[in-house]
Amino acid sequence: MREGERLDDLQRNGAKILQNPAFFCFGMDAVLLSAFSADCLREGMRVLDLGTGNGVIPILMDERWKQGGSGEVHFTGLEINPVSCDLAVRSIQLNGEEGEISILEGDIRETSSLFPPASFDLVTSNPPYMTKGKGLTGKNEALTIARHEVLCTLEDVAAAAACVLVPGGKLCMVHRPFRLADLFRSLDRHGLEPKRLCMVHPFAGKPPNMVLIEAVKGGKAGLVCESPLIIYEKPGEYTSRLLEIYQS
Amino acid sequence: MREGERLDDLQRNGAKILQNPAFFCFGMDAVLLSAFSADCLREGMRVLDLGTGNGVIPILMDERWKQGGSGEVHFTGLEINPVSCDLAVRSIQLNGEEGEISILEGDIRETSSLFPPASFDLVTSNPPYMTKGKGLTGKNEALTIARHEVLCTLEDVAAAAACVLVPGGKLCMVHRPFRLADLFRSLDRHGLEPKRLCMVHPFAGKPPNMVLIEAVKGGKAGLVCESPLIIYEKPGEYTSRLLEIYQS
Repeated sequence: MREGERLDDLQRNGAKILQNPAFFCFGMDAVLLSAFSADCLREGMRVLDLGTGNGVIPILMDERWKQGGSGEVHFTGLEINPVSCDLAVRSIQLNGEEGEISILEGDIRETSSLFPPASFDLVTSNPPYMTKGKGLTGKNEALTIARHEVLCTLEDVAAAAACVLVPGGKLCMVHRPFRLADLFRSLDRHGLEPKRLCMVHPFAGKPPNMVLIEAVKGGKAGLVCESPLIIYEKPGEYTSRLLEIYQS
Repeated sequence: MREGERLDDLQRNGAKILQNPAFFCFGMDAVLLSAFSADCLREGMRVLDLGTGNGVIPILMDERWKQGGSGEVHFTGLEINPVSCDLAVRSIQLNGEEGEISILEGDIRETSSLFPPASFDLVTSNPPYMTKGKGLTGKNEALTIARHEVLCTLEDVAAAAACVLVPGGKLCMVHRPFRLADLFRSLDRHGLEPKRLCMVHPFAGKPPNMVLIEAVKGGKAGLVCESPLIIYEKPGEYTSRLLEIYQS
């Protein structure tokens, strides 16, 4: 481990992940997105995670797949930050996942020149939530890039997904409800039809603070809104559904 | 009363409404929309209800306003079906609301020639939910028109609202969650920015079966997702929030 790094247990098949708390640590959004996206996994799929950071989403999805699925699935994580790429590559080695997960250093905005068209069946992304210049921007550049649309906007993610997905391929994202109109707009502009939506609420009866969405390239209109996902039963106590997501 | 008609008490200031059960009776969606839209009412506003049917939405909003607001508000209900128009006009007379509510027989698709541009501050609509030819279509033509996009689509409603609203004016609608992507798409095409959304769930923890949305003409992006509205505490027993909406 390098200075400042931390090795966390992912509570799944003994898999571990390297993080550097001075930069960015993954949150519950990444865990929920990996569970939501794992529902779409089928044998032989090629999955691309846009802005993969330390690789938490492909690592969690790969471990989920190994628990429940049969046959091979291949994951690619695209990440612009070389420090994050290095963390991801070392975690993958540590977990012995080199055969299933590849990390590529590169810019989401150059996706169309990095991969051939129609080369993925599923795209996942946990993009920055805040528009550029909005909300709190810290002095920490890596954190600002992870949280704000400095290097990558919703439009960029939708455009990138649309160009690498096969027809009928899926894009799964997690975002904030206040960006829902932007999210639908970007998906629409790139021919990605929202097909499944799950609102995530911190407590029952409270406004949602996350939204999980699945869109299909060239899909027909018609959205399934799932049961809301509630995080806490009461302060400090997770709901049984949340525990099931972490443990299943 | 004419043959087949029924006079119902609206449980608000003694107001009544004429309905013909052989055609169409208003449902909870109309009540929820009128409460949701009433939050937008301000003194002097001109409100247009597109596809007003028997006038339930302007009647409920007018009675709400008279209970809580001060100053005048004027409502116009546009309805293509002469039988519904006749029901609406007679209910309004019965309630002594002629000074506040006007009913106009006409086609939503001709809104731009029926009213001058920028002549309304608020538009409400409880449009047909089903796309043409989808879902169950009965032999009852009036019911089919009320439920299916035969004479009026989401696009028609958004286009009509956009052309008669002042800049910054609001459109409030109730719809079904499975049409949410279509809803956002139509609003976007007509420069109506979603600003407030409330999902309505029959029971806590169950998928939503209605969505209430407020969009602002020329508004900036940024959506407030409200606390979910739950209808039943348990089968046959309304939640306190639902009762509050009916009684406040």
